[in-house]
Amino acid sequence: MTDIAMIRAAAARLQGHVRRTPLLSSVFLDRIAGRRVLVKAECLQHTGSFKARGAWSALSALDPATRARGVIAYSSGNHAQGVAHAAGLHGVPAVIVMPADAPRLKIDNTRALGASVVLYDRMTEDRDAIGAALAAERGLTLIRPFDDPLVIAGQGTVGLEIAEQAAEQGVTRADVLVCCGGGGLSAGVALALEATAPGLRVRTAEPDGFDDTAQSLAAGQILRNPALSGSICDAIVTPEPGRLTFPILSRLCGPGLAVSDDEAMAAMALAFLRLKIVLEPGGAVALAAALFRPDAFQDEAVICVASGGNVDPQLFAQALARLAP
Amino acid sequence: MTDIAMIRAAAARLQGHVRRTPLLSSVFLDRIAGRRVLVKAECLQHTGSFKARGAWSALSALDPATRARGVIAYSSGNHAQGVAHAAGLHGVPAVIVMPADAPRLKIDNTRALGASVVLYDRMTEDRDAIGAALAAERGLTLIRPFDDPLVIAGQGTVGLEIAEQAAEQGVTRADVLVCCGGGGLSAGVALALEATAPGLRVRTAEPDGFDDTAQSLAAGQILRNPALSGSICDAIVTPEPGRLTFPILSRLCGPGLAVSDDEAMAAMALAFLRLKIVLEPGGAVALAAALFRPDAFQDEAVICVASGGNVDPQLFAQALARLAP
Repeated sequence: MTDIAMIRAAAARLQGHVRRTPLLSSVFLDRIAGRRVLVKAECLQHTGSFKARGAWSALSALDPATRARGVIAYSSGNHAQGVAHAAGLHGVPAVIVMPADAPRLKIDNTRALGASVVLYDRMTEDRDAIGAALAAERGLTLIRPFDDPLVIAGQGTVGLEIAEQAAEQGVTRADVLVCCGGGGLSAGVALALEATAPGLRVRTAEPDGFDDTAQSLAAGQILRNPALSGSICDAIVTPEPGRLTFPILSRLCGPGLAVSDDEAMAAMALAFLRLKIVLEPGGAVALAAALFRPDAFQDEAVICVASGGNVDPQLFAQALARLAP
Repeated sequence: MTDIAMIRAAAARLQGHVRRTPLLSSVFLDRIAGRRVLVKAECLQHTGSFKARGAWSALSALDPATRARGVIAYSSGNHAQGVAHAAGLHGVPAVIVMPADAPRLKIDNTRALGASVVLYDRMTEDRDAIGAALAAERGLTLIRPFDDPLVIAGQGTVGLEIAEQAAEQGVTRADVLVCCGGGGLSAGVALALEATAPGLRVRTAEPDGFDDTAQSLAAGQILRNPALSGSICDAIVTPEPGRLTFPILSRLCGPGLAVSDDEAMAAMALAFLRLKIVLEPGGAVALAAALFRPDAFQDEAVICVASGGNVDPQLFAQALARLAP
């Protein structure tokens, strides 16, 4: 299982291949939240999300002969781009199984990064079964989006950077809010912080109605969302926490948080206005929780991971319309 | 006059008070430009533009008794926010003289940062005269937007960072495109690169019809724009190059570049899509030149400074509409 040594080893493999993203802030956001708000801008990562880290971690750890046969991934979009990007730079083929209703931008980008895209129906087909069949048929290695120790280790490098950057800004005690789908990023960051910044504690952020992780944490067992679609936060709508990620989250995280789609859109608008970064809805839920759930926190600062920015322009324009004078 | 020692001294004073902004890139932008494109994302700087550097440099160098009486600045907006921000953190009053037609966002932000704002008519009034009178009356120190050796030194710290970050990415020969109004940023970066990265050469980027610097460089003397307004690139519409900046630009820069408002808007849309950053039109002209003037460059890479992101949401939404499917 993933531990701090695996995360440090992933950080070494990622060196020079992923960006050390900045930890941003704005006095205007601090005023809204009533405390300091530090934003880890992973939307500025290669491919527009943190997923480039886990994908690079997994691909770079494969033995060369296995890697050369190619990789396969199933993903709502950001993991797809991460895997396509890492495969392209390693010079190996990638097949990506994507839901047919994923944002067009993500499908187009995945293809443009050189991957073959196979579309499936999110409501009627099982992406795991499709992925496993293709993998067996072509000798591809399946890169899972979150329930893979090497992927969790790669995402954990975000936590190593947060620990260093927060300390540079004088913050050693804070909740660290992480946009949570299957929990790979949350689990990796939690493990990294446990070892390097014990005053920083991960709390998951999810969309209302799709807060399977918050519900599961509260119940002490894995619970499933009643619905599988219906949020604009497509990047983090997963049925339930992962088998590998949940025990880590359960041991290390505080209570989970949930925000409305409307609050996610408001956070996108404020990130545009005050930080000059582009967030997608699923990448904005942690910032939304930091800004709009002030009673959920106790420390003088809160840190949130802005996990991705792959949003269709039309939806982004809708968020901007909230700022009309 | 500004020299590399002043720039290094400014960098020391700025340490911990300004951000080391990332040098971003995207394979999708590289494909458009036909070469590597590296983007220094100064829109992510405090106050949303590089102006926070020059303002901090100037204020931090004042003797404390002088600084305590307060400062004054005249600015189309970004310099205003930089001075207001630096004055606020130093705990001293700031008066900002702004054109009445500046973007509302910039006026509001300047006030919200604690400054007193005095509006003037860009077509009929002389901001220098207004600023000088107010300064004399209240004992304020005038912080000029570009023709001040300490301001140029502060902006030059962008060049120190570009030299280091470009070398980290293996780029030691390239044109460095800088969005140019009065020339403070261009001059500071040119001086920093002369001393630290001799294979990197500054070239100014301006809006069509307001390319006073390009015209002046070509003529070998300071020339004035025929018009004083009419571009969406409000941040960099100045009548002519500065008296201090032009000799530096003339000695160190290659030929100036100009792009249309339409090309600036296209660059904003591509920066949204591919880099997940927010640019204002005047902050996007360097990227526009990098993308849409391929014949103007010879090296395998081009670097551009994305100098600011303080754009009204409605205008940004217009840029996004270009991406409609």
